[in-house]
Amino acid sequence: MAASSADVVTKEALVREHLEEGILRLTLANPPANALSIALMTELKAAIERAGRDPEVRVVILRHDGKVFSAGHDLKEMQARRSDPDGGRAFFAQTMELCASLMLAIVKLPKPVIAAIDGIATAAGCQLVASCDLAVATAHATFATPGVNIGLFCSTPMVALSRNIPRKQAMEMLLTGEKMDAEQALSYGLVNRVVEREALHDAVLQLARIVVAKSPLTLKIGKEAFYRQAEMSLEDAYRYTVQVMVENMMAQDAEEGIGAFIEKRDPKWSGR
Amino acid sequence: MAASSADVVTKEALVREHLEEGILRLTLANPPANALSIALMTELKAAIERAGRDPEVRVVILRHDGKVFSAGHDLKEMQARRSDPDGGRAFFAQTMELCASLMLAIVKLPKPVIAAIDGIATAAGCQLVASCDLAVATAHATFATPGVNIGLFCSTPMVALSRNIPRKQAMEMLLTGEKMDAEQALSYGLVNRVVEREALHDAVLQLARIVVAKSPLTLKIGKEAFYRQAEMSLEDAYRYTVQVMVENMMAQDAEEGIGAFIEKRDPKWSGR
Amino acid sequence: MAASSADVVTKEALVREHLEEGILRLTLANPPANALSIALMTELKAAIERAGRDPEVRVVILRHDGKVFSAGHDLKEMQARRSDPDGGRAFFAQTMELCASLMLAIVKLPKPVIAAIDGIATAAGCQLVASCDLAVATAHATFATPGVNIGLFCSTPMVALSRNIPRKQAMEMLLTGEKMDAEQALSYGLVNRVVEREALHDAVLQLARIVVAKSPLTLKIGKEAFYRQAEMSLEDAYRYTVQVMVENMMAQDAEEGIGAFIEKRDPKWSGR
Repeated sequence: MAASSADVVTKEALVREHLEEGILRLTLANPPANALSIALMTELKAAIERAGRDPEVRVVILRHDGKVFSAGHDLKEMQARRSDPDGGRAFFAQTMELCASLMLAIVKLPKPVIAAIDGIATAAGCQLVASCDLAVATAHATFATPGVNIGLFCSTPMVALSRNIPRKQAMEMLLTGEKMDAEQALSYGLVNRVVEREALHDAVLQLARIVVAKSPLTLKIGKEAFYRQAEMSLEDAYRYTVQVMVENMMAQDAEEGIGAFIEKRDPKWSGR
Repeated sequence: MAASSADVVTKEALVREHLEEGILRLTLANPPANALSIALMTELKAAIERAGRDPEVRVVILRHDGKVFSAGHDLKEMQARRSDPDGGRAFFAQTMELCASLMLAIVKLPKPVIAAIDGIATAAGCQLVASCDLAVATAHATFATPGVNIGLFCSTPMVALSRNIPRKQAMEMLLTGEKMDAEQALSYGLVNRVVEREALHDAVLQLARIVVAKSPLTLKIGKEAFYRQAEMSLEDAYRYTVQVMVENMMAQDAEEGIGAFIEKRDPKWSGR
Repeated sequence: MAASSADVVTKEALVREHLEEGILRLTLANPPANALSIALMTELKAAIERAGRDPEVRVVILRHDGKVFSAGHDLKEMQARRSDPDGGRAFFAQTMELCASLMLAIVKLPKPVIAAIDGIATAAGCQLVASCDLAVATAHATFATPGVNIGLFCSTPMVALSRNIPRKQAMEMLLTGEKMDAEQALSYGLVNRVVEREALHDAVLQLARIVVAKSPLTLKIGKEAFYRQAEMSLEDAYRYTVQVMVENMMAQDAEEGIGAFIEKRDPKWSGR
């Protein structure tokens, strides 16, 4: 199909895909800044959505080429559209909507997404990290929402950021534009682990393999329920998750998993 | 009364009660795993509700016999019911509803509940810790939500867990099933203090005594308001707590407490 | 104008104002406890609201004379009103409503507010710190919500506190009345930085200057959006902030700021 073929060409340019042992590695390859241009976001979102449909994909790693995880939107691309008849408004709306839908696609993907950060992650790049389920960073990673420095507050990035770290630390990043280092990010909850640069590949792969060993159905049930219950009152959250657990118990993978546990053997997941 | 007598017998088997100086110690005594069987949850919930009605009880400590705080639900009990005509569905629903109502009973108890953890707290056992108002752990304590390992995502435990610790740390526990140690639990907010094993008893008792010295009416007002306002918008939370404070000011214990403070003497609480 | 003149007199007594380089320093000057009396709260709220209208004010620092940041409400003032015909109810309601509206005025001020704490901040004093966008403390700073000790639970302070730090740490402060030190406050998110006493003035000024260098329009857009999106579901928050960013992009300051960034020069903000 021509469309697929075109997709592949674009993909090779901006987001590389590599699937092995159920682990899909998506590599941002738009150096030097890995700017989230319309083209890159479109491609990344499509890759995420394909990963959702592909039963071979069990977990996604979001990594990057070069020294920058992602510096956020492509400012030149945006600024150029100020000469549009509407001053760029329609294009800016398209950019922001696409960006938000990309972040929501990660949250809604019924498979865990792990960010691997070995450099600067700013603005929508920082938002990408915050939107992933898990994140592993090196000591070279830094995080910032510096939109305030260029007159454009990081209002969409803060949606994800403020759901990861405490309020005052989020506000400091947003109001000052200054960076948070990897150790602070670990301490306040933006990342899960900080490792040596040389160890990043193995650390992320190890984490991914732990997740791949689980039932994909169970991961799907759990990830969806996590983000849904997070927005409910305590009583509603219990009402909802009680139902989720009952349905989960009725699934073949729970019967198999609990049986294997009781019989002290390894489970064999059917994904049902 | 026959019913009470039966209660006491059951109680001795699974949850021991000891009341002294206004401090009710509830000890999980269902070794080796302190599994939250239907019987134990029924008993624990009843003990919590009795504590709510008993004016002698001012604070509750939730502790455990043996090396395990609680390993969560009784998996053998659940798996056995798969041969029920409905495949176990009704029993699973009963188990999950009872568990959720137990956790809500702790939150709704108008008296502080302090968990004392000197071992493993997993799944609904971890949820118990997260549902308590305060928690003191030893370095031997570990926390995990390993349901994902047996095909049954810890969906109800995550309701409590995700309201205690940051999102990415909660997700790591839920998606990997791996344990969090006591120091991490302290750093991320799952427990309040980590002490030596030998010091646990005294540390918890000391904390309980601090709380017992307060007006029970004030604690009741405050605990209820805490969990209610947590689910409100900022403006609604202020509207609500302004009313709470005015009512609190009109109470005899506030008049006495403020008077004692101004006169630099100890207050005498009436509980009104 | 007589009214203004009266304002100034009152102001000199309880809240000193000093405006320099766009930085408004508001100093609590009601020693020894910097009690939040009706008079002080009225004055502070008026000063905050004036700061909102004054284009010369770009950022607000909230600091204090003496060893106490603020010990909260004026208990003698409140206790004296128990002899009112209504037992003080109307006065207590006035006090609590004024206090809540003061805290909301800080949150709604379209300019960042930085607390500088070099001593005790308790009850509504602790709430003041929690209500500011940023906070810098010295090692002499301590934070507590000790209302429980005097029969009056810190129900309004907990609205702000529980939106800053994890649930169990907030509960510990509220139920025990015991203090949190500056390092813990930093670790759990109640303050942004802890510095030496001698360095406090410079550290706060440095932070304020970083913020003053930003576009005031951008700060206004961002601060408002931060607190609004914090109360929304993830999808609603994105829908809302996408609109905020599009409007922000259409502003002159974003065009200027992005242009300056691309051209590697300093931006000149118009505030539009």
